[in-house]
Amino acid sequence: MSDYTKPALEDLIRTIPDYPKQGIQFRDVTTLIADPVGLRTAIDGLLWPFLKQNVDVVVGIEARGFILGGAVAHELGRGFVPIRKKGKLPGKTIGQDYTLEYGVDTIEIHADAIAPGQRVLLIDDLIATGGTADAGLELLRRSQASVVGAAFIVDLPDLGGSKKLRDKGVLVHSLLSYAGD
Amino acid sequence: MSDYTKPALEDLIRTIPDYPKQGIQFRDVTTLIADPVGLRTAIDGLLWPFLKQNVDVVVGIEARGFILGGAVAHELGRGFVPIRKKGKLPGKTIGQDYTLEYGVDTIEIHADAIAPGQRVLLIDDLIATGGTADAGLELLRRSQASVVGAAFIVDLPDLGGSKKLRDKGVLVHSLLSYAGD
Repeated sequence: MSDYTKPALEDLIRTIPDYPKQGIQFRDVTTLIADPVGLRTAIDGLLWPFLKQNVDVVVGIEARGFILGGAVAHELGRGFVPIRKKGKLPGKTIGQDYTLEYGVDTIEIHADAIAPGQRVLLIDDLIATGGTADAGLELLRRSQASVVGAAFIVDLPDLGGSKKLRDKGVLVHSLLSYAGD
Repeated sequence: MSDYTKPALEDLIRTIPDYPKQGIQFRDVTTLIADPVGLRTAIDGLLWPFLKQNVDVVVGIEARGFILGGAVAHELGRGFVPIRKKGKLPGKTIGQDYTLEYGVDTIEIHADAIAPGQRVLLIDDLIATGGTADAGLELLRRSQASVVGAAFIVDLPDLGGSKKLRDKGVLVHSLLSYAGD
């Protein structure tokens, strides 16, 4: 028995009703990340399955994936590579389109950021429909990366993203699952 | 004498000529951040002046400031609060306009992210004219934060941003200075 009780991660996540639109319960991780115990627990939780996996480089998806991915990379003693929205990376890039509810968006990675065969851990804060993560994994495939896994704080399993990734053979790790969202 | 030679940070930064426009030498830190020695050296370099300064929370500016700020917060055992472009934060925000070369942009912070009197370290990758950093500091002032300092990998001193911050009494820390840019 300890004299300390660790706060549960789910108690540090703020739910904002009807954001960004009616009927959506937005799971806001900024309150978790702003908490020192929350941030440390999240980072350690994200990386532990991969400690024996010889990760070469951590890739994070703009923008909340940068906060978590930067910390995971630092903790692992590895480098960090960003996947950004179109037009934000200054060097030569490769791009991947993905479908949104209305229309198409594009994410990019520097063409020389990943060496062929590098073992990559992909980080983002949340997986919902998985459109962005799936496009990110396609960029990694085209970069000839070896994807060790994809890690998220929050999984919204009813939206199918984690299943989509698993169906493609990606190992998915998440800390919290909100069924019914 | 060591059997190892540490790479210099400046050798890990890529300079992209004429980006985003003719005559600009773009200092690209993504190559530094992708290097494990570069990332670790940068994070340790950013935070060492503040180790005895009782930092309560680390604030980073979107988007590259998230990568660095997340790692600095994790290393310090503190939480991280994001300053984002307008419309990206889901909760109640306060916003601050700042002037760009052509027009005006706005950054925001969650209104409840900083408790009055909290000791804040502000992180971004680069300070040029200082428009964004200055607007971020104004958000922190309006949040009643006590700003411990502002830390950047790269200072472009000829563009006046670091001087502007210092003239307002902010302690500025940078790892590399490119005069003549």
